[in-house]
Amino acid sequence: MKMRASYPIGIFDSGIGGLTVAKAVKEVFPNEKIIYYGDTAHLPYGDKSGELITHYSVNITDFLLKHDAKVILIACNSASASAFEEVQKHVGDRALVMNVIDPVVEYVANQEGQKKVGVIGTKATVNSGMYERKLRNLSPDFDVISMATPLLAPMIEEGFIYDNISNAIIDAYLSNSPLNNLDSLILGCTHYPIIKNQIRRFYDFNVRVIDSGLIVAKELYKQLNSRNLLNHESQQSSADEFYVSDYTAMFGKISRMFFEEDIPLQQNNIWT
Amino acid sequence: MKMRASYPIGIFDSGIGGLTVAKAVKEVFPNEKIIYYGDTAHLPYGDKSGELITHYSVNITDFLLKHDAKVILIACNSASASAFEEVQKHVGDRALVMNVIDPVVEYVANQEGQKKVGVIGTKATVNSGMYERKLRNLSPDFDVISMATPLLAPMIEEGFIYDNISNAIIDAYLSNSPLNNLDSLILGCTHYPIIKNQIRRFYDFNVRVIDSGLIVAKELYKQLNSRNLLNHESQQSSADEFYVSDYTAMFGKISRMFFEEDIPLQQNNIWT
Repeated sequence: MKMRASYPIGIFDSGIGGLTVAKAVKEVFPNEKIIYYGDTAHLPYGDKSGELITHYSVNITDFLLKHDAKVILIACNSASASAFEEVQKHVGDRALVMNVIDPVVEYVANQEGQKKVGVIGTKATVNSGMYERKLRNLSPDFDVISMATPLLAPMIEEGFIYDNISNAIIDAYLSNSPLNNLDSLILGCTHYPIIKNQIRRFYDFNVRVIDSGLIVAKELYKQLNSRNLLNHESQQSSADEFYVSDYTAMFGKISRMFFEEDIPLQQNNIWT
Repeated sequence: MKMRASYPIGIFDSGIGGLTVAKAVKEVFPNEKIIYYGDTAHLPYGDKSGELITHYSVNITDFLLKHDAKVILIACNSASASAFEEVQKHVGDRALVMNVIDPVVEYVANQEGQKKVGVIGTKATVNSGMYERKLRNLSPDFDVISMATPLLAPMIEEGFIYDNISNAIIDAYLSNSPLNNLDSLILGCTHYPIIKNQIRRFYDFNVRVIDSGLIVAKELYKQLNSRNLLNHESQQSSADEFYVSDYTAMFGKISRMFFEEDIPLQQNNIWT
């Protein structure tokens, strides 16, 4: 193990959605340095094949390892579903690898009175069947229903939120009968926390709507703590770094929506 | 010039939207063989930078040239706006290079009574300012207004068409006052012909809504004819070929929506 407590936390996503996870990590670990990579040259991952998502994820992992990341946090459900095992195998003992699915599955499995659990996310995430498989492993009695809702991420990026259009789109997806009578709904895409309250309102606040940010950040805390890898310095070593593989002005704007503050995005395309 | 009349017509797009152009080409040239490349590994191009779109476009052009394309038809507005000149320079006299913007601009400039022309398309297309520049070059008096409508392509791919949701999204975009009192609206994205009539209805059929498919195919006919490159065999040399850089089941399904028949999509990722 070459990891050191002072090394940064590496986080990656297909784009900027993973910033909702990065934000939660900063809340839980104010002194840890973050290196974030958003693969905006290839986004979205949700319509792409598992093989291709894995290929991109391994390349990004190498980039983060070169920057001494002590953690590779896959802050993208499509990549968590398709690429986690390959990334873990690739990294070996060089860093701790985490995805955004396992912590949420464990959290839900430990809740009382959960019988019917819904999952919404991209096609890649839903087609992988990962949430069903992992939830049923822990809780065989769970009724798990997942549904791809691919328009929600571009809808959010375009700023159609908390309005009639997004209400109609949410209604069109969630009114599908398989999603009736849920106890919980897992937001299986890191864009969706932005519309969490809108989805809760769709259910008249009767369904638990679960997003992964804080759940994942707390699990990361546990994992780093148990390995003695928390940074106990009173200040982080240097400023957080945020990279995108393709920079356009749009990402600067959207990153504020997801991270709630300005981010100095740097372009670094590791493929060209 | 190594081109021969019997060689195929190469067409590429970021994904499957360019099939609306391929369809029009097949209507005008039933005996010409088509080689189509949809860069589904990198789609959509519309949110990406001009440099990156150009890089991908040149790679795809090489693939089509290796398959003896006599024409490189860029059936994607984002790539036409960002990459046309570089592709043309790269190809030299090895093939005829066409984009989907110039034929439409010429067509509109030749219409009578056009004063105010709108353009809708992706961020990449609209930010390039290409339609404005080219239209004003031909017709300096034109009032050209363009607006990015990035949610329309994923909306169409998700099958939200001719329903209340798509009506509301179209309304949200087209009700913006800069687009009032248009004489024509150019559909600056090869996905949009699918909703052409819905957009016409939004305007109570009072605005000319222009899509590029047939206009481009007819211009291509003129160009090939003048160079003696039309295929005069009574049958095409071999079956059309359709490649995608990343295959998922979704593309099989969507390709029927755009091409109106089943297409044997082959995966061929020229980057990995």
